[in-house]
Amino acid sequence: MKKLPLSFRLETVPASPIRKLVPFAQKAKADGVKVYHLNIGDPDIKTPDVMLKALTSWDRNPISYSLSQGEPSFITALKTYYHRLGFGFIEDRHIQVTNGGSEAVSMAIFAVANPGDEIIVFEPFYANYNSYGAVNNVTLVPVSTKLTDGFHLPEQKTIEDAITRKTKALLICSPNNPTGTVYTKKEMDMLVSIAKKFGLFLLSDEVYREFSYDGKKQISLFSYMQEIPYQAVVLDSLSKRYSLCGARLGCLISLNEDIMGGALRMAQGRLSSGLVDQVMASKLTEVPVSYTKAVQKEYQMRRDVLFHELSTIHGIELPSKPEGAFYAIVGLPVADAEDFCKFLLTTFRDNNETVMLAPASGFYGTKGRGRNEVRIAYVLNTDALRRSVEILGKALEEYPKK
Amino acid sequence: MKKLPLSFRLETVPASPIRKLVPFAQKAKADGVKVYHLNIGDPDIKTPDVMLKALTSWDRNPISYSLSQGEPSFITALKTYYHRLGFGFIEDRHIQVTNGGSEAVSMAIFAVANPGDEIIVFEPFYANYNSYGAVNNVTLVPVSTKLTDGFHLPEQKTIEDAITRKTKALLICSPNNPTGTVYTKKEMDMLVSIAKKFGLFLLSDEVYREFSYDGKKQISLFSYMQEIPYQAVVLDSLSKRYSLCGARLGCLISLNEDIMGGALRMAQGRLSSGLVDQVMASKLTEVPVSYTKAVQKEYQMRRDVLFHELSTIHGIELPSKPEGAFYAIVGLPVADAEDFCKFLLTTFRDNNETVMLAPASGFYGTKGRGRNEVRIAYVLNTDALRRSVEILGKALEEYPKK
Repeated sequence: MKKLPLSFRLETVPASPIRKLVPFAQKAKADGVKVYHLNIGDPDIKTPDVMLKALTSWDRNPISYSLSQGEPSFITALKTYYHRLGFGFIEDRHIQVTNGGSEAVSMAIFAVANPGDEIIVFEPFYANYNSYGAVNNVTLVPVSTKLTDGFHLPEQKTIEDAITRKTKALLICSPNNPTGTVYTKKEMDMLVSIAKKFGLFLLSDEVYREFSYDGKKQISLFSYMQEIPYQAVVLDSLSKRYSLCGARLGCLISLNEDIMGGALRMAQGRLSSGLVDQVMASKLTEVPVSYTKAVQKEYQMRRDVLFHELSTIHGIELPSKPEGAFYAIVGLPVADAEDFCKFLLTTFRDNNETVMLAPASGFYGTKGRGRNEVRIAYVLNTDALRRSVEILGKALEEYPKK
Repeated sequence: MKKLPLSFRLETVPASPIRKLVPFAQKAKADGVKVYHLNIGDPDIKTPDVMLKALTSWDRNPISYSLSQGEPSFITALKTYYHRLGFGFIEDRHIQVTNGGSEAVSMAIFAVANPGDEIIVFEPFYANYNSYGAVNNVTLVPVSTKLTDGFHLPEQKTIEDAITRKTKALLICSPNNPTGTVYTKKEMDMLVSIAKKFGLFLLSDEVYREFSYDGKKQISLFSYMQEIPYQAVVLDSLSKRYSLCGARLGCLISLNEDIMGGALRMAQGRLSSGLVDQVMASKLTEVPVSYTKAVQKEYQMRRDVLFHELSTIHGIELPSKPEGAFYAIVGLPVADAEDFCKFLLTTFRDNNETVMLAPASGFYGTKGRGRNEVRIAYVLNTDALRRSVEILGKALEEYPKK
């Protein structure tokens, strides 16, 4: 029985730090343990009714392919959404529907970088970027941001020092996953000026656009898109905005027609995104503004509760309160946060309950960084959050000091 | 305004020969012309009621992520389906749910081949394989099959002559898209023996498994899977089997745990397949056998009608009747079938109706082959098929001889 070697690059695709502990969680649940999930940004907020009605009133048969660019009604809905945000220059041809934000990021990386090229990211960064780098054979070059700076960007020179002849793009995310940081106008101006100065693409993952708090507003790359039409690419997703994580819908937006042409050809290769999901999501224009406002208010409250509760735990290292998204990176008084997360799932129980967190090291590109940190997704209601932090505190006390 | 170079590999992703004429078809329709679509395998057969009921009775909220491996109920349903086919050795862990068969093929190519490696395909082959080759930087090496042989495989030596030190796998499709050919047991035996002799992976795209006619049965790679457990990978899709093209669901199946581990890590990178589609599709175990039998009978009849009608057109080159799937490659009495297909969409009208076909050259890897051929998907009812062939015949008469 001959065992053949697989491709060496298969090994380079990392396990998701958000999901790799799932088997331990499944085991705990099978044993009757209640697990509070703070490991994944899978909100408990309801999907808008008007979207679910598109399912319950479904009358198309058969379930046919959609167009590769996207279902026309869905593209129109997306365009309307961007126009309402104030970006009236976006036309149908600037929008490519994708299977979640994931595919949008991956397509953008493929489009701008060849195998061996480099893309600059700011660590900690969304861990799945590592996968998109690996499947596209592109190197992600991390520039560090720090907990003590609220994970805001370093000075321009530090970023420019990371640029080499192989650098093709900067990939940013604001409001940020996993830090919650929202880049200021000054930071966005700086990124655009670097892109101009060095001739780089600027890829902006904006799936948390509406999730900013304390009255602050996200500064979108759309605001700069007409200034750098060939360089700007926005990557978007409906997953968080409408609690549609399971619908796998996002889009790639650019004024650069060569990028859009390439994205469409890639999209043709996989035929289309899901028809049912797109028909459901095309109701987004009918979602009332009050829905988004209520979601925003709810998350701001959750963030406040989470930070208040965490601040009572001895030894926890907290950044300044994140301005957006629904994540926070916090330092724990442990040497190896991944080991602690496993301990939570396999060993620790409080009244037969425990908590699942995402070890943060997978969100860093620099080896060794973030080892004592976890990412907390505050996607549960405030009671569950309070209880989760209580469990976390007790677990830290019981966790064997090595 | 600086225009930056995109990645050179973006240029290598081909436009889909099935879809690239879509803008012309849209224009014709906008002008009020009825277009018979024989260009794409998007069947008019109804999706089973029991699946649609999963939509209209939808009661989950929010629409959350599914697991990266796949929604558990869907994996169970797939396993049951394979067990019913007689392959009782398939367990949950051998199944990775994918976004259509497309993602399954692409994942398999990534898993077994490094950039610059080669995979042997038999031309004409499913054109989107070119996309999966391009996005994975893997070279598809075509071995020719001929219309006059009914597109059956050449002799063993011809295949072996195409194997180089870079060859990692054979990628096959039976029943075949675009030819309809179903490989015999002798052909499957030969492919397995080549895989053994040269230490190659055998990737088998079996999305048309049930679509075989005249009482012939597809010989599945599953029958050989325990014999070559490390080398066999089956790629599957629900699109055609249950008229679920728009649901974007397929799977990759292998007994090779390293492949399954790699596939899961890739799947984690894009989080999950669509929840709604998976819940809908997990009803597949409740689809009555009569559904599949009726579909089979319907397509056999369509094939017979298509071939009967085509045989009346002067100058058309017909292969022997295909044994399966719902495609046929036929030669037309024109120099450039793509030009003729454009003519159909942009110029020719019969009673304000026309036909859309897929030029076959995109299904060939060897430059120049298939230039006078088209792929016809017989996915319309027999009346529409008769009318389509009538239009085709008239168009051929009217098409300017150059």
